[in-house]
Amino acid sequence: MSYTEIQGIQKRLSALGHAVGILGWDNSVMMPPGGASGRADALGSIQEMVHEIITSEELGEHLESCESQELDEWQQANVRELRHQRKRAAAVPIDLLVAIEHAIIECDQVWRENRAKNDWQNTVEKLREVFNLTQQKADCLAQALSLSPYDALMDEYEPGSRRAFIDPIFTRLRAVLPDMIDNALARQPTVLPLSGDFPESAQMSLAKILSEKLGFDYSRGRIDTSHHPFSSGTVNDARLTTRHEKDSFLQSAFATFHETGHAMYTQGLPQGHSNEPAGEACGMMLHESQSLFMEMQVCRSNAFLDYFHPIAREHFNVNGGSEAWTIENFRNAVRKVSRDYIRVDADELTYPLHVMLRYHLETEFLAGNLSIDDLPDAWNEQMSNLLGLSTEGNYKDGVMQDTHWFTGTIGYFPTYTLGALAAAQFFEAFVRECGDPADDFREGRFEDVVTWLRENVHQRGRLLPSMDLIEKVTDAPLSADVFLRHLEKRYLNRAS
Amino acid sequence: MSYTEIQGIQKRLSALGHAVGILGWDNSVMMPPGGASGRADALGSIQEMVHEIITSEELGEHLESCESQELDEWQQANVRELRHQRKRAAAVPIDLLVAIEHAIIECDQVWRENRAKNDWQNTVEKLREVFNLTQQKADCLAQALSLSPYDALMDEYEPGSRRAFIDPIFTRLRAVLPDMIDNALARQPTVLPLSGDFPESAQMSLAKILSEKLGFDYSRGRIDTSHHPFSSGTVNDARLTTRHEKDSFLQSAFATFHETGHAMYTQGLPQGHSNEPAGEACGMMLHESQSLFMEMQVCRSNAFLDYFHPIAREHFNVNGGSEAWTIENFRNAVRKVSRDYIRVDADELTYPLHVMLRYHLETEFLAGNLSIDDLPDAWNEQMSNLLGLSTEGNYKDGVMQDTHWFTGTIGYFPTYTLGALAAAQFFEAFVRECGDPADDFREGRFEDVVTWLRENVHQRGRLLPSMDLIEKVTDAPLSADVFLRHLEKRYLNRAS
Repeated sequence: MSYTEIQGIQKRLSALGHAVGILGWDNSVMMPPGGASGRADALGSIQEMVHEIITSEELGEHLESCESQELDEWQQANVRELRHQRKRAAAVPIDLLVAIEHAIIECDQVWRENRAKNDWQNTVEKLREVFNLTQQKADCLAQALSLSPYDALMDEYEPGSRRAFIDPIFTRLRAVLPDMIDNALARQPTVLPLSGDFPESAQMSLAKILSEKLGFDYSRGRIDTSHHPFSSGTVNDARLTTRHEKDSFLQSAFATFHETGHAMYTQGLPQGHSNEPAGEACGMMLHESQSLFMEMQVCRSNAFLDYFHPIAREHFNVNGGSEAWTIENFRNAVRKVSRDYIRVDADELTYPLHVMLRYHLETEFLAGNLSIDDLPDAWNEQMSNLLGLSTEGNYKDGVMQDTHWFTGTIGYFPTYTLGALAAAQFFEAFVRECGDPADDFREGRFEDVVTWLRENVHQRGRLLPSMDLIEKVTDAPLSADVFLRHLEKRYLNRAS
Repeated sequence: MSYTEIQGIQKRLSALGHAVGILGWDNSVMMPPGGASGRADALGSIQEMVHEIITSEELGEHLESCESQELDEWQQANVRELRHQRKRAAAVPIDLLVAIEHAIIECDQVWRENRAKNDWQNTVEKLREVFNLTQQKADCLAQALSLSPYDALMDEYEPGSRRAFIDPIFTRLRAVLPDMIDNALARQPTVLPLSGDFPESAQMSLAKILSEKLGFDYSRGRIDTSHHPFSSGTVNDARLTTRHEKDSFLQSAFATFHETGHAMYTQGLPQGHSNEPAGEACGMMLHESQSLFMEMQVCRSNAFLDYFHPIAREHFNVNGGSEAWTIENFRNAVRKVSRDYIRVDADELTYPLHVMLRYHLETEFLAGNLSIDDLPDAWNEQMSNLLGLSTEGNYKDGVMQDTHWFTGTIGYFPTYTLGALAAAQFFEAFVRECGDPADDFREGRFEDVVTWLRENVHQRGRLLPSMDLIEKVTDAPLSADVFLRHLEKRYLNRAS
C-alpha cells in the first residue's frame, strides 16, 4: 500500500516541521543571544533532512504507485501537495539553497546594524548578493514549474498566485486609492491622542482577555511578547505574540487582534489531518485574510469599538472627563488615515500603496529593468507618486524599512493586499449568510463569526487552492470590489 | 575520508538532539496542555529518526573504515561513543522501544492522577507493564553488552556504572549513616522558621542575581519556573528552572543553586566540540556531581551562608529584630536534618538512604526476588529499617512519591548518591590545589571555583569516562571517604 508508506513519510515531515516551528518561535521569543549560531546550525541541518525526504526516490516511487490507488479527497490533496513540494525542492540545486541561507544570515545582520544608522552604502553589496542568488533560484523554479520567475517566487508563499491575475487588481487600486485617500483626509476630524498610563502588564492582560473573547483557546495556545508580533504553531498548540508601547495601547491591541486572527486559523485547522500537508493552512494570502478579517473587518468596526471602548477605559482606569476618550475620538484614533513612510504602521487605506510600491520594484528587478544600485531612487520615485512623500537620502524609512528583501523574501508582499481583499470578501459573505453581526459585536459575542470561519475556511485546510476556496465560499472570484466598497463605507461614509 | 563522513552524521544527530532538547524544555516550561499529544508524536518520530541514523549501515561502515585512520583524542572519543550508542540501539528491538514509550505515557498519566488520591490499586497494573517491558529491555541490553540486566540499565544514565563497584560503597553508607544521623539529630538545635513575605517575583529576582554571581552566564542561558526544577540545553544556550513556594524562599534558592551547578556544567562544555558526542556531558552521575558541588559544597557552607544571609535579609526586607533571622538560625535552617518520607525534600545526610531504598528494590526486582505487588510492603520494610518510618497504606509518600519508576527509569537513582560522593571529592581536590575558599565565598567571589571546574571537569566533555575523570582530577578512585568526612565535619562538628 503506497499511500500507507506516504503517511509514514508525512509523519516524519510533520515531526520535523513541528521542531522547526518551535525552534523558530523559541528563537524569536525565548532564546538567549548566545544561542543564535547553534540554533542556525541545527535548523540548517533539519531543513537539509526535510529536503532529502521530499526529494527522495522512495517518496517519488510511492507517489507514482499511488496513481493506481483509490484515494479520498484529503489523500488526493496530500499527494498533490507532496508532488508540488517535490517539484519545487528538486528544481533548486542544494548548493544554491545553502548559498542563499548563508547570504541571508549575513545580509540580515548587516541590515540590522545599518538600518538605524541609515547606512545604505555598507548594506547594498550584501543585498545585491541576496537578490542575485534569489534571482538564480527564481530562474530554476521558473523552468521547473513553467512559470515566470516572479510567479515562481510568489508561488512559494501563496500557491497559485500569478501576475496575470494580480496586475489588473493592483492597477485598479493604484488608480482609485489616491483619490479615496484625499477624500478621506478631507473629511477626517482632528484626532486627539489617547493619553493615559498603559503599563506593559495591563496591556498584556487586556490582550489575553480580548483574544480569548474573540475565540482564541488558551488551553491550546499561548501569547507572549516579541520584537515583531507574529503567530506560529500547530492546531493544538497555536502561539501568537504581541508587543507593547508605553504611550499607546492601541498598537498592542490591534497587533493582538491581527495575530489572534492568524492563530485562530491555526487552531481551526482540521484535527484529523494535523500531520498532513493538506491539513495545513492555505498559503500566506489566505492566512493574511484571516488576520485582517479579525483586525480590520471585526475589530475596527463601529460595533466592535462600541464594545472595546468602555473595556479599554476601565482597564486603564481612564478618568471620566477626558475629551480624547469619547467614543467619537476613540473611533477616529483607531481609524486614522495618514500618508506616511512606514508600511507596518500604515492604515487600511494607504497600506495597499505601500505594497504596490514593493511589488513594482520587485517585478522590475526580476524583469531586468532595475538594478540594486537604483533601488533607493526608484523607491523615492514610487513613494512620491503614490503617497506624495520623498525618501531621498532617507534609507531607513525607505528601502531599508522592511526585513523582507534583506532575508531573501521576494514575492511575499502581494499576499498582504490580496489578503485584505479576501478578508473583505469573506466578511461580506458572512453577513449575507448570517445577518448583520453589529449587535453581537457590541455585546462581545463573536461565536457566529468564529463558527462561520471554522466551517467555511479553517476546517478545509489546504484541500482547495486559496483562490478556489475564496470563490466557493463567497460565490465570486477574488477581486477588489468588496474591499473598495468596504473602504468607501468606512472612510468616506463612516458607516461601518 | 570516513571520519569526515562521520562528522556529517554527527551534525545531524546533534541537530536532532538540539530539537529534542528544546521541545522537551518547551514541554515542561511553555507548552499549553492541548499540545501534549502532538508533541509526543513529534518527539516519537524524531527519536525514531535518531535510532535509524545510529543503527544505519552507513554509519557502521564509516566507523569500521575509521580504524585505519589516525585520529586525535577527541575523534577517538567520538568513535568510541558512537560505537557504544550503536551497540545499545541495535540491542533493543524497535517494537519493544515503541511499546515502552506507549506504556510510559499511559503509566505516567495514571500515576499523576492517582498519586494525590493515594490510589495504588488503580496504578499497579500500568506499573507492572512498564516494569516488565523495562526488564525485557534490560535483558536485551545485558546480552548485547555482556552485562547484568541492572548494570545494562544503569549504563544508559552513567556509562560504566557497575553494581560490583557500587555495592560495597552503598553497604558502607548503609552501615554508617543511621548512627551519624542519630548523632546529628542529638546535637541539632531547635530551628525557628524563617518567616517573612516572599513574593514570587522577589524569589525569581534573587535566583537570577545569585546564579549570575555564582558564574552562570545569562547571555548564553535563561531561567524560568517549572513544576519540578531541571536544567537542559547546550553550551551556548543552557537553561535552568526553579520553583517558588510562598512560605519559604530557601527551597527556591537551593533548587536554583542546584540547577545552576548543572547549567554551568553545560555552559562549560568544550565549544569546539559542541556537535560531537564527546563534547557532551559525561553521564548523569557526573552531572549530579556538578549540581551538588554548587548546592552542597559551595552554597551550604558556613562561608557562603555568611554571604547569603545579609543578601536574603535585605532582598526580602526582613525586620532587623527577628530571632529566627540570626546567622545561627539561618545556618541551622539551611542544614536541618530530619528523617522524613520524601526524597526530593531530604537533607544531605538522609538523602543517600532514600536512594539505597530504591536501589535495593530495583535490583531485587530485576533479580526476580520481588514482585510488583510486593513493592509497597518492601518499601515500608526498607523505610522502617533505614529511617524508622512506616509507609503502611501511605502510597503517595511511599512507593508512589517519585516519577522515575512510572516513567520507566530504573537504574537512575544511584547517580544521585555517587554524584554526592564525587562532589565532595572534587571539592576537596579543589581546596587542596587552590586553598581554602572561605574568604572568597564570604565576599561573593566564586571565580576560582568556576575556573577550576571549567578546566578540570567541564572542558573535558566526555573525553574520559566519569570514573577515570574523577580519579584523574582527584588523584583517587571514587569512594565514600571524602563524602563521609564532609558530613562529619558539617553535621557533627558544624565546622564547614
